[in-house]
Amino acid sequence: MDDAVDFATSSPAQRVTGVWHVIIVYSRLTGLTAFDPADAAPKPESGRRLHRLHPFSSLTAHEIVTAATIVRQNAGLRHLVDADSVVTKAITLLEPPKHLMVQYLDIEHGDTLQDERFTIPRRAEVQYCLKGTTQMYTSVVCLALAQESSQVTEPKHYQGIMDPIEHAVFFDVVGSSPEWAAAVSSLGLPADVELSYEPWPYGADKDTGPETQMALVRIDPMPTEGIANERISSPSPGPNWTTGTALDGCQPNDYHPDLLPPSRQDLRPLHLVQPEGVSFTVTDGSLVEWQKWQFRVRCDFREGIVLHDVRYDDRSLFYRLSLSEMTVLYADPRSPYHVKQGFDLGDAGAGAVVNPLRLGCDFLGSIYYFDGVVNTMEGGAITIPNAICLHEEDGGVLWKHTNDKTEAAVSARSRVLVIQTTMTLGNYDYILAWRFDQAAGITYEVSATGIVSTNLIDPGTSSRWGTVVSPRVIAQNHQNMFCVRLDPAIDGHQNSVQVEKSVPLPLDDEVNTYGNA
Amino acid sequence: MDDAVDFATSSPAQRVTGVWHVIIVYSRLTGLTAFDPADAAPKPESGRRLHRLHPFSSLTAHEIVTAATIVRQNAGLRHLVDADSVVTKAITLLEPPKHLMVQYLDIEHGDTLQDERFTIPRRAEVQYCLKGTTQMYTSVVCLALAQESSQVTEPKHYQGIMDPIEHAVFFDVVGSSPEWAAAVSSLGLPADVELSYEPWPYGADKDTGPETQMALVRIDPMPTEGIANERISSPSPGPNWTTGTALDGCQPNDYHPDLLPPSRQDLRPLHLVQPEGVSFTVTDGSLVEWQKWQFRVRCDFREGIVLHDVRYDDRSLFYRLSLSEMTVLYADPRSPYHVKQGFDLGDAGAGAVVNPLRLGCDFLGSIYYFDGVVNTMEGGAITIPNAICLHEEDGGVLWKHTNDKTEAAVSARSRVLVIQTTMTLGNYDYILAWRFDQAAGITYEVSATGIVSTNLIDPGTSSRWGTVVSPRVIAQNHQNMFCVRLDPAIDGHQNSVQVEKSVPLPLDDEVNTYGNA
Ligand SMILES: [Cu+2]
Ligand SMILES: [Cu+2]
Repeated sequence: MDDAVDFATSSPAQRVTGVWHVIIVYSRLTGLTAFDPADAAPKPESGRRLHRLHPFSSLTAHEIVTAATIVRQNAGLRHLVDADSVVTKAITLLEPPKHLMVQYLDIEHGDTLQDERFTIPRRAEVQYCLKGTTQMYTSVVCLALAQESSQVTEPKHYQGIMDPIEHAVFFDVVGSSPEWAAAVSSLGLPADVELSYEPWPYGADKDTGPETQMALVRIDPMPTEGIANERISSPSPGPNWTTGTALDGCQPNDYHPDLLPPSRQDLRPLHLVQPEGVSFTVTDGSLVEWQKWQFRVRCDFREGIVLHDVRYDDRSLFYRLSLSEMTVLYADPRSPYHVKQGFDLGDAGAGAVVNPLRLGCDFLGSIYYFDGVVNTMEGGAITIPNAICLHEEDGGVLWKHTNDKTEAAVSARSRVLVIQTTMTLGNYDYILAWRFDQAAGITYEVSATGIVSTNLIDPGTSSRWGTVVSPRVIAQNHQNMFCVRLDPAIDGHQNSVQVEKSVPLPLDDEVNTYGNA
Repeated sequence: MDDAVDFATSSPAQRVTGVWHVIIVYSRLTGLTAFDPADAAPKPESGRRLHRLHPFSSLTAHEIVTAATIVRQNAGLRHLVDADSVVTKAITLLEPPKHLMVQYLDIEHGDTLQDERFTIPRRAEVQYCLKGTTQMYTSVVCLALAQESSQVTEPKHYQGIMDPIEHAVFFDVVGSSPEWAAAVSSLGLPADVELSYEPWPYGADKDTGPETQMALVRIDPMPTEGIANERISSPSPGPNWTTGTALDGCQPNDYHPDLLPPSRQDLRPLHLVQPEGVSFTVTDGSLVEWQKWQFRVRCDFREGIVLHDVRYDDRSLFYRLSLSEMTVLYADPRSPYHVKQGFDLGDAGAGAVVNPLRLGCDFLGSIYYFDGVVNTMEGGAITIPNAICLHEEDGGVLWKHTNDKTEAAVSARSRVLVIQTTMTLGNYDYILAWRFDQAAGITYEVSATGIVSTNLIDPGTSSRWGTVVSPRVIAQNHQNMFCVRLDPAIDGHQNSVQVEKSVPLPLDDEVNTYGNA
């Protein structure tokens, strides 16, 4: 009991659940055979008129399946393969050209009647490849006309996301490789241990060509009674691990509360209650209005939350806001660790890895949820329930003043509107939130949580490339870099950036005679 | 209605309620006569045994009155004046010498029985002067022996707080000065206008000697039906105001909700509910325990909240934590504005200006309040109800992880303990909070709110020394500087400071061959 990790105590950086290790698998993604298209292609939403959707609405399941079906058929004919051999890597809304959309929004926020607005045909962009090959293609589908309107062959080095089909290939390749079998048998693991793999995508380094893909593999040796507790260990020697067997000297670092003694019994419940409900409205599937704010929300396969046409008090502020990429750079230079770097949006897709959210765990209060609809590799669409949430928080004292003569105190509490998503990429979990305040301020808040990425290390040693976080476990130094794309439209589209600095003036006899300016 | 300030909209920096102006009053604080000692000297708490108080407990009303009475009597005899002529500027707990107190705390947290502890006599430090003079004296009173144990005459330039008696003198001096009468009559103000003054304390500049005191004066010309709305204007010409009369072209900038049309009707209530009560305990009048935290709270006349003996999980972290000073420096070099600078703790005393706090306005949830007991100038003690509050807040997601194979999500919400006070110094209000998290982290949070300090400016002009925030109203550039005193005792008293920086290594052929280290 004394060794047990106190679940509620540890900060994210302290959370460790075991050991990872890397082995390298080279694969040209050839030799793929069958895959199971289960769960793909839900029924199209019958009776929905596509042209009624706002140009910034998320792609619907119907639209995704429509685009996929057209591209799979055309690509099958074009490349002389069966349509089922076409892998739809990513299907995203192709936003209208900005110059058109700006006109559309001007009319939308003007006095023109809705019936007289011009419409902009909705289009989808489909990134696809053929099963077992790496060549990427991009098609554009006009959803109103149900036609593929363009198709291009991408450059050879262009990579799509590392998708579930490729994951399965890696599992096959690794599981059937003699190196793997030899490494596993050298571990001396108990018979009931299950092994699993974590592919890490990357392109190429100075030693490998661009057509090579490589993956780092993770092993979970000790699932306990059906709960994956991720006490992870390593199958093969590496730079930090040169002697001994796999689990000697490691200690369990379970995190699932079902595997741990109860802790922190002394926190009494704290509820956030909104007896009259929320103060915002969501209409037209995507239009959020709260206080003086107004914006459109879209769930994108690649970027997750995309905010469009953000306005305050009827004034335009942003044409578009999104997270455009997030990369984790590990700083251990010893091969193969030097390739440990993920581009999580480009390699996986934020919308593809969002978590379904739950009250009490993810938020308190009254929550409005948006589902996320994303494509499958087989041309279908799946719905991630509660992918994006919208809720209010108390923001503390907004303003207060006590008149020191009358002692009359006046204060106003502030309220914040939060639109939030959580995505999981292997060990890491990211909580991403746009926060809107009552004074036209927007804050983007990123929380990195989950589990640090770890490897085995020899007993009693340390390394300058990481921190020993548990006996025989090292977490490598790394950075998380978040790249946010801001497309400002503050009172129009002729925006520029100004930086204002306050500097002290020199002391002189004319102006700054006392030195306080 | 269109011109009305939207109460809930404006951020603190945008809040403007009118115009201030400065005139300079020189006073040697002579000629003081009677004052009314109403509300002073509550009854001593009979039956309380002083030596039972913890050495870090706040001074009680009984202790304050005991110390004041002894010093007033002794000083009366010493300086050959009536005891009522002794002004007790500040009465504070004289903390025991640290070397003694460290021993005391070691025993307190050790295994020794309580009865066997040694006791440390409680002492009070009394800063006093004689009415109508500026010479300061400091006495120490041993509260257990009810004796003055030392008394010193401070250096001539030493200044005590600018106290209510001095405020009254300024009002008298200003109100009866011919310059003032001339300035007021030149304003052409309506007959029903009330004028008031805001003294700004400071020492001396290069043009005035150290024995001179000076004050800036504020005028509130337009109280409306008993509500001080602080639409403040200026009585005399100054650097920014050279032409016209006082209120021409100014517009009302009321802030009190009773004076404004209703606004923001569309925010629905949000309550924080703790049906089983709070998760912390307060015992012995000052000992707070929450989660793994333990500390003593004291309300100090000068520093406001003082935290003593801060421990986490039975490990010592800080011997003492407090705000030690806060100064506002205005950056307008034109006399008399160059002297606009307050040292709010030294000039007024944080404990002396704390607000009584209220649920709903200052916090949500279940609140524990500490009263503040401070001395009066006449040797009494007054209680500020709800001067310090203690409450819990939800701290968002502490940690979350979704196992990407099983999709089992585990998360823990975080809770924060907040100990907070709000002080008002003229136009400015400061919300000061120590925040304790569940991973042994402490954050000190400062919010500056209230009203910016303003003056009149000529119509249609601007100034590089401030920002025009309303017609004819300029808010001067300034900085607020907060100085926090940290007395660390992390696992003992031999602490040092380490700074850790992460730097990239140079690319080379031996170690950093790929450039990622
Ligand atoms: Cu990280
Ligand atoms: Cu300020």
